[in-house]
Amino acid sequence: MALRILITGGTFDKEYDELSGRLFFKDTHVGEMLRLGRCRLELAVQTVMMVDSLEMTAAGRQAILAACRQAPEARIVVTHGTDTMVETADVLAAGVSGKTVVLTGAMVPYAFGSSDGLFNLGSALSFVQALQPGVYIAMNGRCFPAGRVRKNTSLGVFEEIPAETV
Amino acid sequence: MALRILITGGTFDKEYDELSGRLFFKDTHVGEMLRLGRCRLELAVQTVMMVDSLEMTAAGRQAILAACRQAPEARIVVTHGTDTMVETADVLAAGVSGKTVVLTGAMVPYAFGSSDGLFNLGSALSFVQALQPGVYIAMNGRCFPAGRVRKNTSLGVFEEIPAETV
Amino acid sequence: MALRILITGGTFDKEYDELSGRLFFKDTHVGEMLRLGRCRLELAVQTVMMVDSLEMTAAGRQAILAACRQAPEARIVVTHGTDTMVETADVLAAGVSGKTVVLTGAMVPYAFGSSDGLFNLGSALSFVQALQPGVYIAMNGRCFPAGRVRKNTSLGVFEEIPAETV
Amino acid sequence: MALRILITGGTFDKEYDELSGRLFFKDTHVGEMLRLGRCRLELAVQTVMMVDSLEMTAAGRQAILAACRQAPEARIVVTHGTDTMVETADVLAAGVSGKTVVLTGAMVPYAFGSSDGLFNLGSALSFVQALQPGVYIAMNGRCFPAGRVRKNTSLGVFEEIPAETV
Repeated sequence: MALRILITGGTFDKEYDELSGRLFFKDTHVGEMLRLGRCRLELAVQTVMMVDSLEMTAAGRQAILAACRQAPEARIVVTHGTDTMVETADVLAAGVSGKTVVLTGAMVPYAFGSSDGLFNLGSALSFVQALQPGVYIAMNGRCFPAGRVRKNTSLGVFEEIPAETV
Repeated sequence: MALRILITGGTFDKEYDELSGRLFFKDTHVGEMLRLGRCRLELAVQTVMMVDSLEMTAAGRQAILAACRQAPEARIVVTHGTDTMVETADVLAAGVSGKTVVLTGAMVPYAFGSSDGLFNLGSALSFVQALQPGVYIAMNGRCFPAGRVRKNTSLGVFEEIPAETV
Repeated sequence: MALRILITGGTFDKEYDELSGRLFFKDTHVGEMLRLGRCRLELAVQTVMMVDSLEMTAAGRQAILAACRQAPEARIVVTHGTDTMVETADVLAAGVSGKTVVLTGAMVPYAFGSSDGLFNLGSALSFVQALQPGVYIAMNGRCFPAGRVRKNTSLGVFEEIPAETV
Repeated sequence: MALRILITGGTFDKEYDELSGRLFFKDTHVGEMLRLGRCRLELAVQTVMMVDSLEMTAAGRQAILAACRQAPEARIVVTHGTDTMVETADVLAAGVSGKTVVLTGAMVPYAFGSSDGLFNLGSALSFVQALQPGVYIAMNGRCFPAGRVRKNTSLGVFEEIPAETV
C-alpha cells in the first residue's frame, strides 16, 4: 500500500536557533522520525512548504490541496501546525475526493525531548491505512473527520464539535 | 470509545540496571509514553505480567487470553516482546471473538533514546480503533492479521507470510 | 567541599509553551540535570531570578552579586544566559573576593534533546572545585577568567580576548 | 591547551543490539557527545580498545598505560567501565609521571536517555585542565586521586577511602 507524506511545517518541525534564541524552520524532522520508528512502509515524502500554521494563507492551502490531488497515492498524511489545521482540513475536505487524507502535527516541537510528534506520526500513518476515503485530523490518539473537529485553544486539545452545533 | 492496554513486558519495558549492568524489568513505561503522546483516549491500563517474550509460557499466553476475554472493552492493545509475539497472536486469534486486539512492541527499549516504542504505541492505538474485530500485529507502521505474519529474525522485521504458504 | 548553584535563568531553563508556541521560563531544570548526572556533591541550589539575559538589568546583577557575597560557600556556580554573561562576570569580578565563582549556561535549552547544558553544568561544577578564587566563565569545555573573554555573537562561541587588547 | 581522550569502552559506549536483545559495543559515542556539548577544545580522540571493564586484562591496562605515555599531550581523559576503573587508575598512577590523567565513565550507557555520561565527560575534561599532574577518577561531579578511591558496588557510587585505611 503506497502512501505519501506532505510536509507543511508547523510545530512538528520547529528548531531552536542558537544564535538568535528564537524558534525557526530549517529542515523537516520527518525523515529522522521515520527512521526512529523503523517505519517499514512504502512512503513518498514531499515538502510542500515550511511555515507556522498561523501564517498559512489561502494560497498555501490551495498548494496543499493541489499536492493531494496530484499525488498518485490514494492515502496521504499531511503534517501541519495545529493552530489552523482545522481550516486546512476543511479546504481539503471540500476539494479532495476518493482519497484518505489524515492531517497531524505536534503540540511540542520534535526537537524537544518532550514532543508528542513521534506518537502522532505513528498514529496518523495507521489511521490513513485503515480509514475510508475522507479527510481527518489525527492528534494525541484520537481521530476526527473534517467538519466535526475544533481546537480548544485554552486547553491546547482537539475535540469533537457536538452534533447539534455542526 | 473505551480502550484497554494489556502490558506483558517485552523490549518496550526493559530497563538498565546501574548496579549489575544488565537489562531487567521494573515498572512499565506505558504510562509515561501516554503522557508524552498527550494521549486523549479513555484508556484502562492493566499489567498482566512483565516478562521477556523468550520466556513467555503457554500458561502466560492463557493469562493474556483470559485478560482479553474478561476485559469489558471491545478494543484492546497488548504490549509484548517481539520474539514470540506471533505465537501469542495465534493463541489470541483462536480464543477471542468479537473484539479487536492489536499486539505491539519495540525493537529497542523505550528507555533508550533511539526506541521505536512511542511510534508503535501511537500506531497500535490507532489501528485498534479503526479495524474490524480480529487479532493483529502492528509494528513499525505496518499491520498484519494474525496467522499471516512472521518475524524475520535475521533482519529484525515483521513481514507478511505469502498467501500460498499459509 | 560545599558548593552553591545560583540560578538566574537563561537559555538553560527555557521551556516551550504548548498553548502559545513561544519559549518561556517556568521552573529551573537544574535539579533534574543534577539527578541525571547522578551528582554526588553537597550542593545548595538557589533561584535568584528567572530571566532571559537580554533582559538582565543592573539591579539584577547587583542581586546576583549580593547572593554571591551572602553565600556561606566559597565555591559558587551561576547559571546565566549567554548573551550578557560577560557583563555579569565583570560585575561579580569587581565585587566578590576570596571566592571561586564560575558562570555557565547553554547555547540550546536543556528541554531540547540537543542541548549542551548537561555537559556545561558538569564542566562548571568541576572547574569551580579546582580553580583558585576568581570569577570565570565555563562554556563548551573551555574556561576563561572574567575580563579576558567575549561572546562572538556571529559564531555563537565564547573566545579569549587577545592579551594586547584587554 | 592540547588534550587527548583515550577510549577503552565501558558502560559509556554500550549499545542495544536489536536482533539479539543484548548490550554490545559498536562504535564509541564520544564524538557525538563532544558535538552535543559543542566542545571547543583542541582534542585528539583515540580508541585504545572497546571492552567491558569486567573483562579488562593486565595486558589491556598496559596498553592504556603505553597510550598515556606515548601521547604528546600532557593532559589525558580516559573513558573506562566503572567496575574496574580503580584498578586501572592504580596502574596508571604507578606508571605515568608529569601528566594529568583523569578517568571517567558512566553508570548508564550514553545511548539511554537517562545517562550521566555527558555530565561526566564535561566534568572530566574540566578537571583535566585544572588539576596538577597525577591520576584521578572523576565521576558524578566528584574527583578523587588514584589510591584514595573505591567503588561502593552496593550503592553504585565512587567514594573516598578514609585516610587511616589507605
